[in-house]
Amino acid sequence: MIFASQRIDNADADYQVASAAMETLAKEQPGYTGMVSARGDDGFGITVSYWRDEASAVRWRDHSEHTAIRERGRGVWYDSYTVDVADISRNYAWNRHD
Amino acid sequence: MIFASQRIDNADADYQVASAAMETLAKEQPGYTGMVSARGDDGFGITVSYWRDEASAVRWRDHSEHTAIRERGRGVWYDSYTVDVADISRNYAWNRHD
Repeated sequence: MIFASQRIDNADADYQVASAAMETLAKEQPGYTGMVSARGDDGFGITVSYWRDEASAVRWRDHSEHTAIRERGRGVWYDSYTVDVADISRNYAWNRHD
Repeated sequence: MIFASQRIDNADADYQVASAAMETLAKEQPGYTGMVSARGDDGFGITVSYWRDEASAVRWRDHSEHTAIRERGRGVWYDSYTVDVADISRNYAWNRHD
């Protein structure tokens, strides 16, 4: 699941707390297999969360705490966002130290 | 296509030039439909490029200039990276100003 978001300039301090809490909560969900995240100085960020299957991703979407935070995100933190649900067909990893 | 990369601390100045050149080149390819990118102060970044179909994504992977830059990335700029090729099954967009 790809979440790309433009944060508003003056996201309040609660944002960092909520963002960290959501990351912790996601990791506790059944079917969670990983997450990566990056946000630049312009406030644009991308988070990719990985799930075992569609059902796990849907459960996370509908999780009550996640839903509540989403409402707060729309109300306060984000200017816009997109969500892509995608099935990974191939992947590849490279590491300098391998 | 999801490209997640950890840049090394001292990526040379060529990196920014090459990164911008690759973005421009990708946009010129047949089947390109979009790109978003974010990189944080820790050097970890995510770029998602969108393609009309698998063939377009493979053509981009195999593009000669892209291949050359990839080699330079492995040689000089990146500590590690992952690539996920994924088919988008659903997407959703929210905008405060809609």
